[in-house]
Amino acid sequence: MNTELTKQMAINTPIMLAPMGSVAGGELAAAVSNAGGLGMIGVGYGDTDWLDEQLSIVSRKTNKPWGVGFITWCLTKEILLQVLSYKPHALMFSFGDISPWLEEIAKHDVAVFSQIHDLAGALEAHRLGVDFIVAQGTEAGGHGTGQRTTLSLVRGIKKQPIDTPVIAAGGIADGRAVAAALKLGAEGVSVGTRFYASFEALAHYRMKERLVECGGDDTIRTQVFDIIRGINWPKGYNARAITNKFVARWHGDEQRLRSSITKHQPAFYLAQENADPKVAMVWAGESIDSIFNIEEAGKLLEQMHRETLRHMR
Amino acid sequence: MNTELTKQMAINTPIMLAPMGSVAGGELAAAVSNAGGLGMIGVGYGDTDWLDEQLSIVSRKTNKPWGVGFITWCLTKEILLQVLSYKPHALMFSFGDISPWLEEIAKHDVAVFSQIHDLAGALEAHRLGVDFIVAQGTEAGGHGTGQRTTLSLVRGIKKQPIDTPVIAAGGIADGRAVAAALKLGAEGVSVGTRFYASFEALAHYRMKERLVECGGDDTIRTQVFDIIRGINWPKGYNARAITNKFVARWHGDEQRLRSSITKHQPAFYLAQENADPKVAMVWAGESIDSIFNIEEAGKLLEQMHRETLRHMR
Repeated sequence: MNTELTKQMAINTPIMLAPMGSVAGGELAAAVSNAGGLGMIGVGYGDTDWLDEQLSIVSRKTNKPWGVGFITWCLTKEILLQVLSYKPHALMFSFGDISPWLEEIAKHDVAVFSQIHDLAGALEAHRLGVDFIVAQGTEAGGHGTGQRTTLSLVRGIKKQPIDTPVIAAGGIADGRAVAAALKLGAEGVSVGTRFYASFEALAHYRMKERLVECGGDDTIRTQVFDIIRGINWPKGYNARAITNKFVARWHGDEQRLRSSITKHQPAFYLAQENADPKVAMVWAGESIDSIFNIEEAGKLLEQMHRETLRHMR
Repeated sequence: MNTELTKQMAINTPIMLAPMGSVAGGELAAAVSNAGGLGMIGVGYGDTDWLDEQLSIVSRKTNKPWGVGFITWCLTKEILLQVLSYKPHALMFSFGDISPWLEEIAKHDVAVFSQIHDLAGALEAHRLGVDFIVAQGTEAGGHGTGQRTTLSLVRGIKKQPIDTPVIAAGGIADGRAVAAALKLGAEGVSVGTRFYASFEALAHYRMKERLVECGGDDTIRTQVFDIIRGINWPKGYNARAITNKFVARWHGDEQRLRSSITKHQPAFYLAQENADPKVAMVWAGESIDSIFNIEEAGKLLEQMHRETLRHMR
């Protein structure tokens, strides 16, 4: 299975790990890379001690290519240089303007992935000369804009005079979906939620169990988890999570939640610590319909690879 | 290209026309059927004179299989019997409870398609024993719920113990997207927007031109066009259309529009008659990124069929 992703990154299968902030650490990234995919660490909001630990783990546990994903609007030069000092093979930038970072990155031998959510974003990423465009649809778990779907966005980009290779992100959790994405013209896929439900993912086991118990119908794009945590995401972003009592209470009543954060935060963080399903935040894509077990990440990748091969023939 | 759709309906290509209300009339349905697909007439809100005219046209212009699609929540027994008297080969039910109609339909030799928007809807359609489940994602033009995407919904249904064949609807406007849908496990696809931009579609030419001029980023799911027309859709439904000044003014301010309908209706209907792009309602799916011309429906279907074949190999 040769695509621009496997060729340019020197990997065996056109599947990359979505750099899920604080969930995709060194163990998960190394497991995906060792199984032939492109493992990614998710920096999240930038805890530098945590990041050093994860970068050390991935450096120690794999000699295959791996990468790191940033939330662009909260990236700092300190963090970028910290990451680059570990010599990653790929950097992914999501949610924000990548252009201030291009000069620094150009000094290093690293592939640049820009995650976008609409056709306008794809055209801009192409203009800036990134190596890969990651086209994320609304079905994806976690943050995004929810404006386009994976199918329509990938096809839309392929109809443009854009030669930058496209990676499909959102809704992909098994080999048949990978095969479909390649048929659409993608050169690879980014898979998040399926790997959240792996042993190596840095999340409470009960949260992983929620991905098995629930289905895509139980997910929703909402801002309530960002609001309760006091994280000021730029306008236009929300995140797909499993809905629960907490979401049902506050979704659509965001103004009131904003004005009473301090009152509700202690109970929220306690529930989060205990992974209380009625309250806790579990990012999840619509593809959880396809998740029936928690498994080693390497095994998951190998299964996905075999199923993709079978359906590409 | 043999699938359950081509076999059960005795057609040549697994592509059906989405029964776009008042846009998919007899000419368009006949053109699609004559080219080897399954042509469908869209009843819309039930103008019986218009319907008689369209049913006469399709009966006269093709001897291939064709069908009719209903908005279930406003279907009447009179209309159902009117349609059945023309002996259609397929009936599609969308947006509402199909069960009150099953007894009458069972007396006739006609295939039943149930269009659903989430996994719960698919399980219910399967339980009721329909012949085909049409799984519509949020990328589709016109009415729907916007809760799921085509990719994730089709994969989700295929992971269930459901043996009813699935038709993918939403985001599909070219052969590569058809090939991707078949890879996902669909037995066929439903295509609307691409055929809206055909000569035979019953719409103002300027509205068809909007589909060529605009892209998927310019579409939005909204209720404003239902509100201004005074049509009381049940809770949970909205419709994807090309956004414009009118939508920008009222989307998010629906309560005020509701309380001033009579004041704004005359100007709206005048703009609609003139197909004024700043105001008029043009249903469109995200797949308009793939629409570059207005063409004969038969030619469009043949191109799509050939491209699908090429990409299935």
